[in-house]
Amino acid sequence: MRVLGVDPGTYRMGVGVVDSERGALTAAHYDVLAPPRREPLPNRLHYLYAALCDTIREWAPVEVSIEQPFAARNVRSAISIGHAEAMAMAAAAKHGLPVYTYAPRQVKQAVTDHGGSSKEQVQGMVALLLGLHGSLESSDAADALAVAICHINATEANSAMTL
Amino acid sequence: MRVLGVDPGTYRMGVGVVDSERGALTAAHYDVLAPPRREPLPNRLHYLYAALCDTIREWAPVEVSIEQPFAARNVRSAISIGHAEAMAMAAAAKHGLPVYTYAPRQVKQAVTDHGGSSKEQVQGMVALLLGLHGSLESSDAADALAVAICHINATEANSAMTL
Repeated sequence: MRVLGVDPGTYRMGVGVVDSERGALTAAHYDVLAPPRREPLPNRLHYLYAALCDTIREWAPVEVSIEQPFAARNVRSAISIGHAEAMAMAAAAKHGLPVYTYAPRQVKQAVTDHGGSSKEQVQGMVALLLGLHGSLESSDAADALAVAICHINATEANSAMTL
Repeated sequence: MRVLGVDPGTYRMGVGVVDSERGALTAAHYDVLAPPRREPLPNRLHYLYAALCDTIREWAPVEVSIEQPFAARNVRSAISIGHAEAMAMAAAAKHGLPVYTYAPRQVKQAVTDHGGSSKEQVQGMVALLLGLHGSLESSDAADALAVAICHINATEANSAMTL
């Protein structure tokens, strides 16, 4: 199973494609989509949508997993989260891919066995789990890979139960 | 000047295309984009994005005006507003159209001279201003036409000042 994980943001959107085969996880691709910072919001959103569509076409995931922040600090930042999340959802739906969302706590729990772990711990564990040997410099890309792993774990735990 | 007005929502999105020529306003088109209600959110967002792109291609507005709710009731509804608004912004940017946003109070003020007017008053005044003779049944479409009128008023007031 190949899963695209997305860590949504309107300035920086982490994407990570993870393959799971017989329990072994590998990173097929990871990147941070970053529209030019001075562009107005509508242009940044269009940039992200187009870049997500390119990523889906190039890497052909079968499912999409999105990290969904549990609580925004305020209404303004909630609207902004909505903007970024909507681009990931619409790009997935355009390509007929099912979408799953996970809270940050679930994502952290999935990769570090602890819902309250730090960004650095997530980054370190994702690199270890995927054999990336310290080459994972961006925490946005690490979060995207982590939410893909989280979905793979949830799916595999689920199919094990239904056997 | 031809302006596309949008009243964003993830279940019902009002769209209205208004022409302004030598001070005369006419409605070229208005509609409510309504994805199938039972579809999951990503599919509804994709439907809305595609329908907005179709509307822009068919009616060729030169600017897009979006009603931006001032205050969401809570974080959940703010994220939802963000989802719908992002579709309108991304569709406009895809077609190279500049985007303007207005608060509900500004929109009401523009069509009824009173920022606190009711939905029915807005609907009635929009029909009157555009000569629609009571055929404007949807308040979502009326709000979309109203935000287009609001932008036309703001633009024309502005160009009068700079003469």
